[in-house]
Amino acid sequence: MAHLMNNKDLEFLLYQVFEAEKLTDIAHYQDHDRTTFDGILNTAERIATDYFEPHNAKADEHEPQFDGEKVTTIAEVKDAWQHFANSGLLSARHSFEDGGMQLPALIHMAANTYFMSANPSTAGYPFLTTAAANVIHAFGTAEQKATFLPHMFSGRFSGTMALTEPDVGSSLGDLNTKASPADDGSYRIKGQKMFISGGDQDITENIVHLVLARIEGADKGVKGISLFIVPKFITNPDGSLANRNDVQLAGLLHKMGYRGTTSTVLSFGEKDSCVGYLIGEAGKGLMYMFKMMNEARIGVGLGAAMIGYRGYLESLDYARNRPQGRKPTEKDPLSKPVNIVEHADVRRMLLAQKSYVEGSLAVCLLAARLVDEQEAGGNEDSGILLDLLTPVVKSFPSYYGPRANDLAIQVLGGSGYIREYPVEQCYRDNRLNPIHEGTHGIQSLDLLGRKLWQHNGKGLKLLMARIHATLASAAQKEELAGLVGEYQTQLKTVQETTLLLGGALQKGQVDEALSNAALYLDMMGKAVIGWLWIEMADKALTAFGQADSADDQAFLAGKLQAAQYFVRWEMPEIQHQARLLQSFDRTCLDMKNDWF
Amino acid sequence: MAHLMNNKDLEFLLYQVFEAEKLTDIAHYQDHDRTTFDGILNTAERIATDYFEPHNAKADEHEPQFDGEKVTTIAEVKDAWQHFANSGLLSARHSFEDGGMQLPALIHMAANTYFMSANPSTAGYPFLTTAAANVIHAFGTAEQKATFLPHMFSGRFSGTMALTEPDVGSSLGDLNTKASPADDGSYRIKGQKMFISGGDQDITENIVHLVLARIEGADKGVKGISLFIVPKFITNPDGSLANRNDVQLAGLLHKMGYRGTTSTVLSFGEKDSCVGYLIGEAGKGLMYMFKMMNEARIGVGLGAAMIGYRGYLESLDYARNRPQGRKPTEKDPLSKPVNIVEHADVRRMLLAQKSYVEGSLAVCLLAARLVDEQEAGGNEDSGILLDLLTPVVKSFPSYYGPRANDLAIQVLGGSGYIREYPVEQCYRDNRLNPIHEGTHGIQSLDLLGRKLWQHNGKGLKLLMARIHATLASAAQKEELAGLVGEYQTQLKTVQETTLLLGGALQKGQVDEALSNAALYLDMMGKAVIGWLWIEMADKALTAFGQADSADDQAFLAGKLQAAQYFVRWEMPEIQHQARLLQSFDRTCLDMKNDWF
Repeated sequence: MAHLMNNKDLEFLLYQVFEAEKLTDIAHYQDHDRTTFDGILNTAERIATDYFEPHNAKADEHEPQFDGEKVTTIAEVKDAWQHFANSGLLSARHSFEDGGMQLPALIHMAANTYFMSANPSTAGYPFLTTAAANVIHAFGTAEQKATFLPHMFSGRFSGTMALTEPDVGSSLGDLNTKASPADDGSYRIKGQKMFISGGDQDITENIVHLVLARIEGADKGVKGISLFIVPKFITNPDGSLANRNDVQLAGLLHKMGYRGTTSTVLSFGEKDSCVGYLIGEAGKGLMYMFKMMNEARIGVGLGAAMIGYRGYLESLDYARNRPQGRKPTEKDPLSKPVNIVEHADVRRMLLAQKSYVEGSLAVCLLAARLVDEQEAGGNEDSGILLDLLTPVVKSFPSYYGPRANDLAIQVLGGSGYIREYPVEQCYRDNRLNPIHEGTHGIQSLDLLGRKLWQHNGKGLKLLMARIHATLASAAQKEELAGLVGEYQTQLKTVQETTLLLGGALQKGQVDEALSNAALYLDMMGKAVIGWLWIEMADKALTAFGQADSADDQAFLAGKLQAAQYFVRWEMPEIQHQARLLQSFDRTCLDMKNDWF
Repeated sequence: MAHLMNNKDLEFLLYQVFEAEKLTDIAHYQDHDRTTFDGILNTAERIATDYFEPHNAKADEHEPQFDGEKVTTIAEVKDAWQHFANSGLLSARHSFEDGGMQLPALIHMAANTYFMSANPSTAGYPFLTTAAANVIHAFGTAEQKATFLPHMFSGRFSGTMALTEPDVGSSLGDLNTKASPADDGSYRIKGQKMFISGGDQDITENIVHLVLARIEGADKGVKGISLFIVPKFITNPDGSLANRNDVQLAGLLHKMGYRGTTSTVLSFGEKDSCVGYLIGEAGKGLMYMFKMMNEARIGVGLGAAMIGYRGYLESLDYARNRPQGRKPTEKDPLSKPVNIVEHADVRRMLLAQKSYVEGSLAVCLLAARLVDEQEAGGNEDSGILLDLLTPVVKSFPSYYGPRANDLAIQVLGGSGYIREYPVEQCYRDNRLNPIHEGTHGIQSLDLLGRKLWQHNGKGLKLLMARIHATLASAAQKEELAGLVGEYQTQLKTVQETTLLLGGALQKGQVDEALSNAALYLDMMGKAVIGWLWIEMADKALTAFGQADSADDQAFLAGKLQAAQYFVRWEMPEIQHQARLLQSFDRTCLDMKNDWF
C-alpha cells in the first residue's frame, strides 16, 4: 500500500491551521460544510490510490512513444484521466450553474495533493486542462466557452499552455509565432513552440492549445502579444469534431523525470492553415496568460511539495523498518541492530524533510485560501498578499522539495539509488519544478524587482501584519517564547535587508540591488515558511491539551519539533545571506565571461 | 567535441599548486620528468576522448541486460576497456619490475580525471580492477599474485570488491557470508552479496571478486572477518581458466545513473562448491579491505569532482552561446538579447560550480600527492594527514559535485532537464557518490568520532601547519590580505568547535557530541577547500605577473574570483553550523520515532 498522505497532516492544516470551515461563511461556499469537503477528499484519495499511483513507476519506465504519426501512452493514463474526469474534479471550482461544485480553492488544492503524491506525471493532464479552461472561462467569448468548456470539463478535451519557443525561453517578449487575420474573423497561426506539456497524446479526443502569438503588424515586445485558442481538431459549436487543424507534433522531448507527461515540440501552420481564435483583446495575451501562469506557479509549488512529501513518507517507512547498526554508546557489537530511525543523523534527515515538505504544503494551502478570500470573499488585500507570495509559493517548494527527495534517497542508502525503490523517481520528477513556469532566477527578480513594491509595498505590510498576529499569539505560550524570539531575530534581519534593497532600487542602483536576488528569494522563503511553522506550532500546542490519545499527542509533538528544527537549523542562514545582500556583494556581478 | 577538461586547470594544479615536478626528487620516481608525465596525460586524454566519451550517453540509455544466463553490455564498453588496458594504465602505479610505470599517484589521478569526466560508468571497470589488484599485490601470497595480477594488469581479468550484503549495508561487522576450510587449503564460500559493481559482465574473460566472509567458528563482529579471492572461473597458475566457480549472478539492480556499470546481487556457493582463497591472515579481512576502501573513497571523491566538473564545462559552454533576455538596466526591450553568461544570476551559478568542482579536484589531487609523499617518499606525517583528510576527500566532492550538477541543469533551464543534453545524466550519475564506499553519515562519524583523535590529534596539527603556511604566504600579498582575514575568522571557529567537541567526547558525552556530526563534516570540508582556494589564489597571483597573454591573465583572474566566491559566499555558513555544534543542539537527537 503506497503512502500518499498522512491524513492527520491534511486535517490539521485544513481545519486547525487554515480554518477551512470558516470558508462556508462566504456566500459562494455556503452550501458546503465539512461533510462535503471530506467527501471530496475521500473521493480524491480513492481515485488517486486506485487509478493514479499504481502506474506511476510504469509510466516512468514506459514513456510516451511517437512513431512519426501518433503518440502512444500506456493505457493506464487514459483510464486514470477518465476516472478523474468522471469525479467532477475538472470543473470542481466552477459554479453550480456552469456544472461545477463551487468548491473552495483550499479544498480543491487539498484534493489535488493526493494526485500529485500518487503520480505527478499523469496528474499533469487534468491540472493543465483545468488551468486552460480557467483562462477560457475568464476571458473567452460566450461562443468559445460554449464550444470548448463543457468538453474540457467532461474529459473529452484536454488543454495546454503554449508559450515557450525554441529560441525564446523565459524572455516571452521576444516570441516569434505569428497570427494573420483571416476573412472569417479567425487567425492563421505560424510558428514553433517547445517544451509544451501534454502537447500531444492519445488520451483525449481533442486538445485545446492556448497559444501566445504576435498579430501581423503588432508591436514588438510584450505589448504586441495576443492569446489564441488553437484546437488540434477544428471544433463545431456543438462540440463535435470537424477536420484536423494544422498543428503537428514535430517531436517528443525526453525528460529526466515527469516522463509520463509528454513534452513536445509543436509546429503550427506548416501548411499555412492553422486556425486560431483570438481570446479577448489583441495585445493583452500576456496579461491573460499570467492569470493561468499564476495558478500554474502555485500548482508547481504544490507538485514540488507533494513529490517531496511522498519521498518523505517512503523514507520514513524505510527508516522505521530497516535494522542497521547500533547507537554510538552501545558497547556490545553483538547486540541487536536498531532500526535506522533511531540514529540521530537519520532523524536529522527525516526532520529536515518533514520541515521542508509540510512547510511547503502549508504555504501552498495558504495561497489557495488567499484565492478564496479574494475571489469568493471579495477581499482585495488577500489578492495583494497572494501576488506578493506567489514567487515564494512557487520557488520554496521547488527548491526544498528536491532537497527533501535528496535526503530521502540518502536515508535509503544504496536502495534509494535504484529503481526498485520509489524515491529515485521522486528525485528525478521533482527536478523539473525549479525550471518550469518561471525559473528560480525569474522568480527572484519578480519578487525583489517588482512584487515587493507593487501597491506601494502594501503586500509586505499585509504579510507582516499576519506574521505579527501569529507571533503575538505564540508568544503567550511559555513553551514557544524561546522559538518566537529566535524567529524574530531572523525576521528583523529580513526586514532590514528589504528596506536597504528597496532604497537602493529607488536610487537607481538596479544592477547592484538585483544581482544577488536569488539569496533574497531564499531568505524571504525561509521567513514565510518559518512563520507558518510558528503558526503550526501554536495550533499544535493549543490542540495538545485536548488531544484524545497518545497517538494524537505524538503527532502534535512532532509539529513542535519540526518547527524548532526549521527555525533553529534552517533560518539562521538568513544572517549570512543578509550580510552579502546588505553589502551589495559584487563577487558574481564582477565575474567576467573570459575569467571562467 | 566534448569538453572533458580545461587542460589549463590541470596544468595549474599539477605544476603550480602541487609541484608535481618535485616528486621526481623521490628515488622511486626519479626516472620521470614533466615530459613523461605529460605524455601519459595526453594518452589518457586521447583514449578518454576517443573511446570513453562517445558511448557515455549510449551506455546510459542501453544499460546492461541479464537474460537469466548471461549479461550483455554494449560493445563499446569492452572496446574502451581494451584500449585502457593496452595503454598500461591498469598497472601504471606499480614498479617497473612488476611491469608497471612507477607513476606517481598524483599523475595517475590526473590521468584518471579524463576518464571520469568522459564516462564514469565505463571507467568504473578499470578503477575497480586497479583497486582489487592493489589489495592482492599488498597482501596476497606470491602464488596469488602470480596467478591473478598479470591478467588483471593486461585486461583479461577484472576485479570487484564484495562487501555489502542484503541485510548488512554500512554495518560490516554484522556480515553473514561464511567460509568453510576445505582439505586443499582453500575455502568454500556461502552467502549473498548486494550492490556489487561490475559483479558480472561480458567484458573480461574472468572476474576476481574480493569477498569478505566469516570463517566457520570465527568471532562475531569485525574481528571474525576474513578476505577471500573468489574468481568467477577457477584459474590455473599459468592464468588459463579451469571450471566455472560456484558464484552466480542472482540479478542486476537498476540504478538511477551510473547505468553502464553493472550493479549486481551475487550468490556464492548455492551448490556448496564456491572456492575462495584466503588473503593474508584470517580475521584481518576488514583491515585489508580498508586499504582498498581508502583508495576507493578517494576515487569516489575524484569521480564526484569530475562529474561535477563535466557538468560545469557543459553549462559554461551553453551559457556562452545561448542568447536570452537583457540586463536589468537595459531599457530597450527590442535591443538584442545577451548571452546568458552576462546575467549576474547565471554567473553566480557558474561561479558556484567552478568553486565546488575545482576545489574538489584540488583536494583529490592533494590526497594523491600525500599518497606519494607517504608511500614513495616515506613521509609518515603525510600518511597521517591523508588519514585525517580521507572523509573530506570522499564527502566534499560527493556533496558539492551533485550540487554543481544541479546548478548546471538550472543554467540550461528546460534543456537541462531533457536527455537531449548531457547535464541531466551528470546529475543522475553523481547522485551515487554520497552513498557508496561509506555514506555521508559514516564519513562524518569517521571524521569526528575517530580520525581527528588518532595519533594524539597529530593529523589536525599537520593540517593546521599546512594551512598556516599558505595563509602566511598569501597574507604577504596585498590583494589577498582581506580574503585571508575572512578565511581566518572561519578557521578560528572551526578550531574552537573541534576543541569543544573533542572535550565532550573525552568526557564521555558521545551521543551529544556525535549527533550533529554531519554539520561538522561539512564545516571541516569548507575549511579544507577554502584553504586550497587561498593556496590557488596565492599561486595564481604569483603567476599573474609572469603571464604571457591576456588569455592566461583571464584564467588566473578567474581563480582569484572563485577563491573570493568560496570564502565569502560559502564559508560563512560555518558560523551557523558552529552555533548548533557548540550548543550541542538536541533538536534531532530528541526527535522521537512516533513523533514523525
